[in-house]
Amino acid sequence: MELTNSLRKTIISLDTVKGRRQSGLFAVEGVKAILETLPYFRLHSFWATAEWMDLNGTSLPAGISVNIIPKREFDRISFLKTPQGAMAVYYIPDYDAEPNESEVGDTLTLALDGVQDPGNLGTIIRIADWFGIDTILASRNTADVYSPKVVQATMGAIGRVKVFYVDLARTLTGLRKDIPVYGTFLDGENIYQAGVNPGKGVIVMGNEGNGISPEVARCVSVRLLIPSFAAEEGREKVESLNVGVATAVTVAEFRRRGGIR
Amino acid sequence: MELTNSLRKTIISLDTVKGRRQSGLFAVEGVKAILETLPYFRLHSFWATAEWMDLNGTSLPAGISVNIIPKREFDRISFLKTPQGAMAVYYIPDYDAEPNESEVGDTLTLALDGVQDPGNLGTIIRIADWFGIDTILASRNTADVYSPKVVQATMGAIGRVKVFYVDLARTLTGLRKDIPVYGTFLDGENIYQAGVNPGKGVIVMGNEGNGISPEVARCVSVRLLIPSFAAEEGREKVESLNVGVATAVTVAEFRRRGGIR
Repeated sequence: MELTNSLRKTIISLDTVKGRRQSGLFAVEGVKAILETLPYFRLHSFWATAEWMDLNGTSLPAGISVNIIPKREFDRISFLKTPQGAMAVYYIPDYDAEPNESEVGDTLTLALDGVQDPGNLGTIIRIADWFGIDTILASRNTADVYSPKVVQATMGAIGRVKVFYVDLARTLTGLRKDIPVYGTFLDGENIYQAGVNPGKGVIVMGNEGNGISPEVARCVSVRLLIPSFAAEEGREKVESLNVGVATAVTVAEFRRRGGIR
Repeated sequence: MELTNSLRKTIISLDTVKGRRQSGLFAVEGVKAILETLPYFRLHSFWATAEWMDLNGTSLPAGISVNIIPKREFDRISFLKTPQGAMAVYYIPDYDAEPNESEVGDTLTLALDGVQDPGNLGTIIRIADWFGIDTILASRNTADVYSPKVVQATMGAIGRVKVFYVDLARTLTGLRKDIPVYGTFLDGENIYQAGVNPGKGVIVMGNEGNGISPEVARCVSVRLLIPSFAAEEGREKVESLNVGVATAVTVAEFRRRGGIR
């Protein structure tokens, strides 16, 4: 494949949501992130410098068609301050565009309601991967999972966890009645004492500053609270937990009850 | 106080560990971070623009002596890309320089062995604050808690959690024999099944890439593992958990067993 002006423009546009939506592509850099995503996504094109290939070429799986370009050309398409010399451009998967509504929540599922920070989103995808959650529903105002920052932060977990962007309130309203929807709130029940079904349902995590939105909150059937030890001690109010940390504590408790080994 | 050339140089140097060590000072910007740290640290000086004071002056506690400086002067001392117009300069507390060794681990204590990322360190301090851990021991190669990035990431928790930089292996070796030292390792015992004393001991968290160092690992008396649900399902190896997330899951489990309310 040749790096035409038009293709170069397309690749450079993958730094923005608009560019990714228009082209249906996303980009991954760094040898570790590339090797970890190659098995999971359909490759559009692979770009590398001759120096990178000398060093890393043998770690690439067979059958990858590599386009060697001069370093100065590579530096123009790279999103990194210190370009590493290789970029994989993938097709954004569509997973048939929508989750299968009749199955959502049959196994533990995460839902993100407006998580904004790319680092937090990446952390949450890694947590889902670690704890065996393979589907995440994301509201349309959640950060884009295919942005270079998020892809980098997921450390490859993005290949194993499917993220669907949906109208979250509508999707949760349409769930079967036997699927519990959990959310954490300041007036919720202590998660360590509440009755939960550890292997089934949707766990909603809210926006960094505002928590769960009112429309989505109306869909939550079980309101939980991660208790603060400091509050118990009567110390003054502490800050809230970071959303990645709150996700980890919540999901770990569900898995503990389910008898994680 | 006047912003002399020499004082300006000192303040600008607070972006580096060296500058902070030499002056014994650190700086905080942003109205929220300033208001949350004012009650906890001894103020060296407070710098603000007239515009900032117009907007925020009334939210400052009484008795703060504010030095009003022109915006162009303020922008020179600010560490932010978009200066907000106010900076508190504090004395770094010395907590009498060393933790009281005969008491370390009498209540649950965290120890950080080479945590490098300022964001991770900030997250861990927030977790400690939330779960009522008031002392953190940090190895000397752990990131500096008074760097602007860490202070910002702690969201005020830095005022309530004491961080001591120590020779970690030496400090852990010197603990009383009844103080358990916990650490997470790939060959550890499932944390949900292991016997732990939920209210006493030191929990060691390791470096992002290399985990706990060999010298410190020798001091660990109880080796724990946060089990991966994915591994149980026989899926291929997943990436490790982020150190902030691993800290949260570990500390939450200790607090759950201790009967957090």
